[in-house]
Amino acid sequence: MINLNEDTITGAVIQRNAQAKDARLRELMVNLVQHLHAFARETQLTEEEWQQGIQFLTRVGQMCDENRQEFILLSDTLGLSTLVMALNHRKPAGCTEATVFGPFYVHGAPELPLGADIANGAKGAPCYVSGTVRGDDGRIVANAEIQVWQADEDGFYDVQYTGKDQLAARAVLRSDADGNYHFRSILAEPYPIPHDGPVGDMLEALNRHPWRPAHLHFLIRAEGHQSLTTHVFRKGDKYLESDAVFGVRSTLVADWVRHEAGTAPDGSRTDQPFYVLHFDFVLARAGA
Amino acid sequence: MINLNEDTITGAVIQRNAQAKDARLRELMVNLVQHLHAFARETQLTEEEWQQGIQFLTRVGQMCDENRQEFILLSDTLGLSTLVMALNHRKPAGCTEATVFGPFYVHGAPELPLGADIANGAKGAPCYVSGTVRGDDGRIVANAEIQVWQADEDGFYDVQYTGKDQLAARAVLRSDADGNYHFRSILAEPYPIPHDGPVGDMLEALNRHPWRPAHLHFLIRAEGHQSLTTHVFRKGDKYLESDAVFGVRSTLVADWVRHEAGTAPDGSRTDQPFYVLHFDFVLARAGA
Ligand SMILES: [Fe+2]
Ligand SMILES: [Fe+2]
Repeated sequence: MINLNEDTITGAVIQRNAQAKDARLRELMVNLVQHLHAFARETQLTEEEWQQGIQFLTRVGQMCDENRQEFILLSDTLGLSTLVMALNHRKPAGCTEATVFGPFYVHGAPELPLGADIANGAKGAPCYVSGTVRGDDGRIVANAEIQVWQADEDGFYDVQYTGKDQLAARAVLRSDADGNYHFRSILAEPYPIPHDGPVGDMLEALNRHPWRPAHLHFLIRAEGHQSLTTHVFRKGDKYLESDAVFGVRSTLVADWVRHEAGTAPDGSRTDQPFYVLHFDFVLARAGA
Repeated sequence: MINLNEDTITGAVIQRNAQAKDARLRELMVNLVQHLHAFARETQLTEEEWQQGIQFLTRVGQMCDENRQEFILLSDTLGLSTLVMALNHRKPAGCTEATVFGPFYVHGAPELPLGADIANGAKGAPCYVSGTVRGDDGRIVANAEIQVWQADEDGFYDVQYTGKDQLAARAVLRSDADGNYHFRSILAEPYPIPHDGPVGDMLEALNRHPWRPAHLHFLIRAEGHQSLTTHVFRKGDKYLESDAVFGVRSTLVADWVRHEAGTAPDGSRTDQPFYVLHFDFVLARAGA
């Protein structure tokens, strides 16, 4: 262990960590240390750059609290979240693709009946969403739990408003006996990820914008099927090709069709233009 | 950018970051993203492990404050600090080797005359330290700034005592016209790095101890020479082979010679045993 230099330090650290009792932890640490050290060696990292890295990570950690997870933003903007999602959700052909979870999911969203308006005060043009949940054998999936959440017309999720405790534009629904679901909400709009912290500074240094194309989040769970974490993206959005968190998949892009004021899909009359989105989900069988 | 999967995401992130105006930042980000993604891909990182990693890094950041730098401890215990030091301080043969800086350096330590007792209340057996500063051409270096700092007999640095503002067991000295220095302090003892935080939890999971072998820290600066950040380690210490931060070099190990009570090197009489350390430094020429 003595006289470690730039060529021998990596092996010494790996050897030390080999005392870990958990085999998976040992495996992760070997790989982590190799890549961490290779980064420093291959870039000939200077002490000043090391110091800047320490300060950056410290700021990222200190930015985190109950309502803000800056390390997830960092993982998202470096493409790590998309990679981990891809590694863990290889779907059989024909199944709806998964995408990143994001930091705005909330436990305990209200359980609402099909047809409900989930906006609960969130502002935006009316939007009617419907579709069917099926298995990859083509059979309908009744009683699937459908969690949905989205930002408002200003690009903010309910949890981003300080001093407001009311959940809005999120709900838990259930597909009916024919596998169908429908609800009313508001039009999805593009929004920037929170960029007033160190991750925002990183994006600026990288000459990257913080915007995500408009999307609806879905988390769908049904007995006998794999759970599906995904988005539906809005066709025509100018950020589809440059999503700040690398989440877009072309199979998840759908048309929000604009209608003039008149009779909405639920039979009610609206005095303003509204949008209609139809999207069907296909779940992979459990264990597939 | 669309339809990114586990094979294409890395290239997409690198391409996006290529917009950075600073060439060195571009270079660092390409390498960082490649290694970060390779870690996830090669280990087939699960979502639960990703989540645990996010939580760990968040705790590391939140542990940091003015007196505690948990990310430096993480870098130290993963051998990154030693690697970066080695990459940036390749010394010509014959020069005193460098080692890690550590988190306990303080700006503004008292400037004391040669021969002073730097302990300033820090507890420990008396210790008399002396030596000569030379250049690698063998010529003495007069008026070198010699910063020294160390832990007390309980293994704590002054800054680790909450509620105590007094600097202790640290000083700034100057070599005399013959390149010599000498001062009185206390015996260096082994100590554990702070391990009541996430890095301590990591060491425990890895079945590693947090101890460092006894050492004196030195930072030496002199005109026309490269600055030298190093330790002198105490011969015979049981942690020499397993320093928690991988800092030991055999050329930096020296003998603290024990003497019975009697006449100390400075001519004074002591009624307790004391220790004597002699260590010479050799500085590399600037630009060498
Ligand atoms: Fe979102
Ligand atoms: Fe130390």
